[in-house]
Amino acid sequence: MNQTIIFYQLFELESSTYTYLLADPATKEAVIIDSVLETVERDLKLIRELGVDLKYILDTHVHADHITGAGRLRALTGAKSAISHQAKVECVDHPLKDGDKLFIGNTAISAFETPGHTNSCMSFLIENRIFTGDALLIRGTGRTDFQGGSSETLFDSVHQKIFALPDHTEVYPGHDYNGHTKSTISLERQFNPRLGQGKSKSEFVKIMSELKLANPKKIQQALPANLTCGIVAEKQSL
Amino acid sequence: MNQTIIFYQLFELESSTYTYLLADPATKEAVIIDSVLETVERDLKLIRELGVDLKYILDTHVHADHITGAGRLRALTGAKSAISHQAKVECVDHPLKDGDKLFIGNTAISAFETPGHTNSCMSFLIENRIFTGDALLIRGTGRTDFQGGSSETLFDSVHQKIFALPDHTEVYPGHDYNGHTKSTISLERQFNPRLGQGKSKSEFVKIMSELKLANPKKIQQALPANLTCGIVAEKQSL
Repeated sequence: MNQTIIFYQLFELESSTYTYLLADPATKEAVIIDSVLETVERDLKLIRELGVDLKYILDTHVHADHITGAGRLRALTGAKSAISHQAKVECVDHPLKDGDKLFIGNTAISAFETPGHTNSCMSFLIENRIFTGDALLIRGTGRTDFQGGSSETLFDSVHQKIFALPDHTEVYPGHDYNGHTKSTISLERQFNPRLGQGKSKSEFVKIMSELKLANPKKIQQALPANLTCGIVAEKQSL
Repeated sequence: MNQTIIFYQLFELESSTYTYLLADPATKEAVIIDSVLETVERDLKLIRELGVDLKYILDTHVHADHITGAGRLRALTGAKSAISHQAKVECVDHPLKDGDKLFIGNTAISAFETPGHTNSCMSFLIENRIFTGDALLIRGTGRTDFQGGSSETLFDSVHQKIFALPDHTEVYPGHDYNGHTKSTISLERQFNPRLGQGKSKSEFVKIMSELKLANPKKIQQALPANLTCGIVAEKQSL
């Protein structure tokens, strides 16, 4: 029997962050994407209950709104951490480049550079699911006004890398603030009000320049902590 | 090609309620389960964007913590509402009994009476997904201290109706407060601390009797409103 991949979507309520746990059904090798420090124990409990073996800890980018659970998970499980090589994060076992692949069992995790929200954002494709971090959100995008962000670059990343995927590919973002859990490439091409619906790059740049967002509440702690996989913050909180 | 069912899980943040939208891929006939009044417009937008045709509006029970969107969705779409016949709700097109089936295209929605959280709770099985409302939650259960609730009855409902399903059946509850989005029958049988792990009925009754929960904040508005599909509340808010 052709078993389907083990897939769990988890939500961290304070930062509205989605964490994803996937495991190869045959070997039980698992990957976690965008873990959050505060929910590491919940995620470890689920990993134990599912009887899967955490192999990789991925982050789509250096988050500004929450502290990654990567360092704590790495210390507690021995799993290997991975993030874009451009993120210049300490304690990363696999600095990833565009087109790199990691494997859980025979299941490939393909890494694509999708900069623009930050200069080192990646998206990860596993079977028919793309994990877009804060590049492409559901009917939205990540902001582009700090961490080397660029609206022009983000437009190109989404159009050239993400919208190039088949229509039915499921989109799982790093956050959602409206209670959506997934989308598809087809829906985002048609209905994303920022860069779908045939919007041009200049229209997108104008939309983004007019957002005038406040800084994330945790940016002062999160950015330095995430450059060391969340380990500094953990020590401070002990 | 054998198309898979269209499936979207939606979250209402204030009451931590999950709403589910499913559609038959061939006919595009759709069902919504446990809609929330405040998020009806979001759900209607998704229905339009997906190009599906809402046929049924189901509620697992008369909710005490939020007002159903059923009345508003019924008025705006012409879809038919359904809930347990025991709920004695006005304006219900299909009062459901144990074992009843509704269809979206060729896809069956099987209704099971699973009382105990309230005296009229139902769970709905669609393919390999069971929508359990507040009978079985992820590593928890609904409370049993009002609306005709009974811990003994809930224990029997879960063990005789829900745990009777195959191990791999996916469990989608009416709420989650810890950021979980789904479970499986196997996980709940093994790890549910209230009535899995080999717990006896008397152990479950004791656990439930010691919970000492406060009433839901919205119970005074929600219960009377939900007996009229949320229509009273809607008129009051206009």
